[in-house]
Amino acid sequence: MFMPVGTQATVKSLQPRELKEIGSQFILGNTYHLWIRPGDDLIAKAGGLHKFMDWDQAILTDSGGFQVFSLADSRSITEKGVTFKNNIDGSTMFLSPEVAMKIQNNLGADIIMQLDEAVPYFETYDYVKKSTERSARWAQRALEAHKCSKQQALFGIVQGAGFRKLRENSAKDLASLNLPGYAIGGLSVGESKTEMNRVLDFTTQWLPENKPRYLMGVGAPDSLFDSVIRGIDMFDCVLPTRIARKGSLMTRFGRVVITNHKYKDDFSQLDENLDDYASTHFTKAYLHHLFNTNELLAYNLASIHNLRYLLKLMEDMRAAIENDQLLDLKEKVLEEYGYNKANARLF
Amino acid sequence: MFMPVGTQATVKSLQPRELKEIGSQFILGNTYHLWIRPGDDLIAKAGGLHKFMDWDQAILTDSGGFQVFSLADSRSITEKGVTFKNNIDGSTMFLSPEVAMKIQNNLGADIIMQLDEAVPYFETYDYVKKSTERSARWAQRALEAHKCSKQQALFGIVQGAGFRKLRENSAKDLASLNLPGYAIGGLSVGESKTEMNRVLDFTTQWLPENKPRYLMGVGAPDSLFDSVIRGIDMFDCVLPTRIARKGSLMTRFGRVVITNHKYKDDFSQLDENLDDYASTHFTKAYLHHLFNTNELLAYNLASIHNLRYLLKLMEDMRAAIENDQLLDLKEKVLEEYGYNKANARLF
Ligand SMILES: [Zn+2]
Ligand SMILES: [Zn+2]
Repeated sequence: MFMPVGTQATVKSLQPRELKEIGSQFILGNTYHLWIRPGDDLIAKAGGLHKFMDWDQAILTDSGGFQVFSLADSRSITEKGVTFKNNIDGSTMFLSPEVAMKIQNNLGADIIMQLDEAVPYFETYDYVKKSTERSARWAQRALEAHKCSKQQALFGIVQGAGFRKLRENSAKDLASLNLPGYAIGGLSVGESKTEMNRVLDFTTQWLPENKPRYLMGVGAPDSLFDSVIRGIDMFDCVLPTRIARKGSLMTRFGRVVITNHKYKDDFSQLDENLDDYASTHFTKAYLHHLFNTNELLAYNLASIHNLRYLLKLMEDMRAAIENDQLLDLKEKVLEEYGYNKANARLF
Repeated sequence: MFMPVGTQATVKSLQPRELKEIGSQFILGNTYHLWIRPGDDLIAKAGGLHKFMDWDQAILTDSGGFQVFSLADSRSITEKGVTFKNNIDGSTMFLSPEVAMKIQNNLGADIIMQLDEAVPYFETYDYVKKSTERSARWAQRALEAHKCSKQQALFGIVQGAGFRKLRENSAKDLASLNLPGYAIGGLSVGESKTEMNRVLDFTTQWLPENKPRYLMGVGAPDSLFDSVIRGIDMFDCVLPTRIARKGSLMTRFGRVVITNHKYKDDFSQLDENLDDYASTHFTKAYLHHLFNTNELLAYNLASIHNLRYLLKLMEDMRAAIENDQLLDLKEKVLEEYGYNKANARLF
């Protein structure tokens, strides 16, 4: 399952009904951003995030930790939690496992995440060990602070960077809490794809077979295959919508940089393989024109297209799994997408 | 009939299917902008503007003249046409009645406009007389140059600023060409509403009763009533979409400046009187949040809302005319909208 990212109570440039139309059953909301604007109290007053943004399908909210570690200033982390200055108005805020639960209880998503520390991949063993053990204690505190465990499923986050023993310990610590699902954190943060696969290989075996496994921040076609093969069920990524707004389309035959002038009179479909509104109603030449004239509709159509590409890919993978043909599908898709070409690293 | 403006082959931030959904049967395309980007030849190659932008309802294109006179630099006008530097890349271009026809034949709209000179309202009698007579000669040349008169209806444009005699002569000159429709130009360009009504009062009587009359650039509710009462059938205006993108909503009870912080926790509908997607699915608090966080969906929802407001107003006017209740409707709508309040000039 792939979740489009709706950072600020909106998947950028898309209406909720358009998301449903392309087969999205789950979206991700960012606790950090919603906490700052419009505030979790206001969203609670609106009746929760589903109602506020008119989304009647499922929502997962992250813990806010990732943004605190990537966007905020003047961070200081203790056993109690993290103090930081937010990136919007610079005011000082404090996030702890308990605060993250309070906010996410207010937002009311279907799946919520424990606060963890987003550790850089290439930290020392000692630092990662200390941080991972603290994150496990934070999972315990999150579970105790969680007020609506009947309505909201709390997921723990396995950390441990590239260290086999730390990943094993982290997974076991979390599994002992008997949570309804588990995320694998600290990946897709700059390490190589080989490295990510190596970590998945020795991590997933320690997680309960019957609980969903969620890999955060992954959306490239090859990584989706690699991760599904290794037992991952859920993904989110800003990639499809972010590159869409820059004019980069994900298509069956690889990336199409629609802003390239060679598309100015290309009257073919965006992707003849796809069934979404953008692909079936507009040509490459038209979308090129919209980007060339900075028209807002460009972002909407390109985003619809890219999200549908990924959602359809996940649908195809599910069908292939049922027919035991996942590896065949992987080979076919990646070959057509161009992963064997010289510029494959761009994907 | 009110035509949303689709300057660059797109009504800003709206999909064609969204326009149809809110009852739009006609849109306006700007010849000047399309001529420069992507070019009328390219649009002809795409199969015409309808096909290029996926719009299967009607289109009217203007002549390009208004933009030449309002946007371009280094204009020089002669009997032959206008030479100018365009505002995109500064290159020198030449627009004449014949060129305007060639471009519009390529674009393939259902209604096309003769080239005229957009004269400032407060020019001298002598200047306006000379210009208006030239515009009438240009109408004749447009008619002769028009290659697709079976598929495209050519409208003439009545000029004459605020001079009764010049308006009469202009209307008679054009009426003698037996065109399928007539526009009234040179209004809504800074003169008062009283002044505009005065000109309409003495102009429309000279136009054939059985041909459509089109008043360009009018979209304020009071002016729509005033003009319909004076026999106008068609309008276009950028107002609803332009103010929408600034966060200003047209509602039954007047303008709602949704960016105002007082709407942050207002969970009422955008306009409980309206039936569009934006009004029926989202609250003022949500739209306030989208504008506050610069989210693209804000422009889409506000534009859908404002266009639906105006299209619905035109539907209501049509029904009122059939029941001979137009003046009652005018009084009710303008009272509710707040035209009797101190800030009425903002509308
Ligand atoms: Zn180009
Ligand atoms: Zn506010």
